[in-house]
Amino acid sequence: MTDPTPRRAPAGAAVLREDVTEAIRAAVFEELAAVGFARMSIEGIARRAGVGKTAVYRRWKSKLSLVLDLVGAFAAQGMPAPVTGSLDGDVRALLEVASGALRHPVASQVIPDLLVEAARHPEIAEAVTAALLDGQRGVVTRIVREAVARGELPEGTDPGRALDLIVGPLYWRLAVVRTGLPPGYVDDLARSAVAALRA
Amino acid sequence: MTDPTPRRAPAGAAVLREDVTEAIRAAVFEELAAVGFARMSIEGIARRAGVGKTAVYRRWKSKLSLVLDLVGAFAAQGMPAPVTGSLDGDVRALLEVASGALRHPVASQVIPDLLVEAARHPEIAEAVTAALLDGQRGVVTRIVREAVARGELPEGTDPGRALDLIVGPLYWRLAVVRTGLPPGYVDDLARSAVAALRA
Repeated sequence: MTDPTPRRAPAGAAVLREDVTEAIRAAVFEELAAVGFARMSIEGIARRAGVGKTAVYRRWKSKLSLVLDLVGAFAAQGMPAPVTGSLDGDVRALLEVASGALRHPVASQVIPDLLVEAARHPEIAEAVTAALLDGQRGVVTRIVREAVARGELPEGTDPGRALDLIVGPLYWRLAVVRTGLPPGYVDDLARSAVAALRA
Repeated sequence: MTDPTPRRAPAGAAVLREDVTEAIRAAVFEELAAVGFARMSIEGIARRAGVGKTAVYRRWKSKLSLVLDLVGAFAAQGMPAPVTGSLDGDVRALLEVASGALRHPVASQVIPDLLVEAARHPEIAEAVTAALLDGQRGVVTRIVREAVARGELPEGTDPGRALDLIVGPLYWRLAVVRTGLPPGYVDDLARSAVAALRA
């Protein structure tokens, strides 16, 4: 239960506290990759980070809130809003960003873990979904709104359905089928998604 | 380590062996729902089924082979080939069957578990994918072949890509977004999937 954050150095304390937070974040991703969410413990995270359990609990109240915080930050980081001026371009740019994010080890190992928790614990499903989807929902809502304004999609196009049609096939291929993306796949998918949106 | 299968009753033994097998199958689904794949043990399955561990190991060599066997049987059962005589009809029928199967508790809890194992253990990924996908791949290959023969899809349409476009959005909505299917969703999705296939 030792905590390396010194109690008597107010000037350096802020920096050291950030170092500890970063060490914990890095340790969580390593633990998740190594043993998965179900088997991961705050104790194991603290050991890997070289800090005391108290240092973890001072920052996050549970294993789940810790992981959701990190996943939310990762998802937001991987989701800059592509603005190209056309529906075709925006869909292609979104698929490019999403295919990079979904192939990242964090996504490919942590998302399945979180979906297991969501399927088994309805009370945490909403938090998991928000961490995974809020960034993408924002981007797709903007893409649909601008495409409607340009007359490329009909009024009343549902952004939720648009997200399903754009990201669904890519996620299925990368997370379930797991055979990778053949050359030209993202281009073909963008063309298909736009046709699907207009149907 | 007791096994209730009697050694001295050859006439009744076959029936009792089937009862034991069925008890084990039922126990596996209950254990999976209750504790998940990672925490599930052959010991727990045997206890719930009221049999000895030996009875389980005599039938399946590991926890994974047991679960894959059951999931494969479940997936094949939920996947009769819909034959309607048109691409629109076949895609709609497949989405209807798949949405029923994916909403079943077995699918919604066990598939995420298996994808976690696949992401973490490349050596079992192929077996997991085959158990989950072989049935659907067969159906989509048949649908595409017949649609090409009728002139509804171009020659050379890739059945793998067709599966992504048809089932991907539905899986994403049910397994990731988890907000359920609004009325008319499957019809809209069928129309969109056909447009996507033709794009």
